[in-house]
Amino acid sequence: MVVCEFSLVPLGAGESISAQVARCVKIVRESGLPHLLTPMGTILEGEWDQVFSVIKRCRDELRRDFNRVLISIRVDDREAPPGRLQGKVRSVEEKLVRM
Amino acid sequence: MVVCEFSLVPLGAGESISAQVARCVKIVRESGLPHLLTPMGTILEGEWDQVFSVIKRCRDELRRDFNRVLISIRVDDREAPPGRLQGKVRSVEEKLVRM
Amino acid sequence: MVVCEFSLVPLGAGESISAQVARCVKIVRESGLPHLLTPMGTILEGEWDQVFSVIKRCRDELRRDFNRVLISIRVDDREAPPGRLQGKVRSVEEKLVRM
Amino acid sequence: MVVCEFSLVPLGAGESISAQVARCVKIVRESGLPHLLTPMGTILEGEWDQVFSVIKRCRDELRRDFNRVLISIRVDDREAPPGRLQGKVRSVEEKLVRM
Repeated sequence: MVVCEFSLVPLGAGESISAQVARCVKIVRESGLPHLLTPMGTILEGEWDQVFSVIKRCRDELRRDFNRVLISIRVDDREAPPGRLQGKVRSVEEKLVRM
Repeated sequence: MVVCEFSLVPLGAGESISAQVARCVKIVRESGLPHLLTPMGTILEGEWDQVFSVIKRCRDELRRDFNRVLISIRVDDREAPPGRLQGKVRSVEEKLVRM
Repeated sequence: MVVCEFSLVPLGAGESISAQVARCVKIVRESGLPHLLTPMGTILEGEWDQVFSVIKRCRDELRRDFNRVLISIRVDDREAPPGRLQGKVRSVEEKLVRM
Repeated sequence: MVVCEFSLVPLGAGESISAQVARCVKIVRESGLPHLLTPMGTILEGEWDQVFSVIKRCRDELRRDFNRVLISIRVDDREAPPGRLQGKVRSVEEKLVRM
């Protein structure tokens, strides 16, 4: 299972890109994968192929209208049971309580 | 004002690094800057110098115990009023409602 | 065609990871895709599926020995002829000459 | 000493940003720090404050003309002698020869 944060930035779309981000979030929601929307990107949890298939669909969606799209992806790939979207933050907070 | 996501990974700390992340989150909280803890990093809002001073303090903290620390930083630097930690997500969600 | 920089960091491998990086570079070279090795990662040029298939093979290789691997990927996806590995730097240098 | 890769993307500059990248590379060259220009960014070597002062100057330069600039930074901070810009790649290539 991977936890994966990604963000896409179309060039030539002007200063505001929230409409383009919304198109991607729609695709993420339709995928059914657990996800979080943050101020800096979208975080997904799933198998490698599931996650990268979603990212590719988002890229295809934006490339329909834009010649150039920059994409940033960070993956935390770990042998672990699902639920890490909540588990990772909880694990840090448990340590904070004891500090 | 910048919105900035960062994460630090000490090498040589083994597979689990949540205790090290907690040390950094403690520094972030003491800074008083608006912030969010996500499964993939910490998101801060503030002036450039404020934000990078916090990141440097986190790095100093981990470098006390580890010879090598990898750091990933993404910055969204925009002429805009404060409150973007909430505003960026809200702006996307408003577009989603209308899709 | 995409230009894609990626780096993999196995956790639990200790402070030095050059042996693990070498295993990935070997896979990259066997792929036959144009590539560059930099101090901060490997840069590939190819079609989306080609590039991500190489990254997945690198990840599979390291996951054989490590329970946790962190991966950072940045993609510049643009409607453009091949040769951007050289072309992107050349384009900047041409502008520098005229400054 | 840190090895640091960074890239700046001004939004609202259109599809091609090589002219803006050139303005940043000029600042990097004037800094006198060891550096490399790659197809995906600029890699610097120096002390933490030196490196981040250069990045801030690049950001100030682009923010003069653009309301919004996205910045990506990756740092490898290690207790090690200078020369890592060459040393990191050489270390991987030595391992490759023996594989």
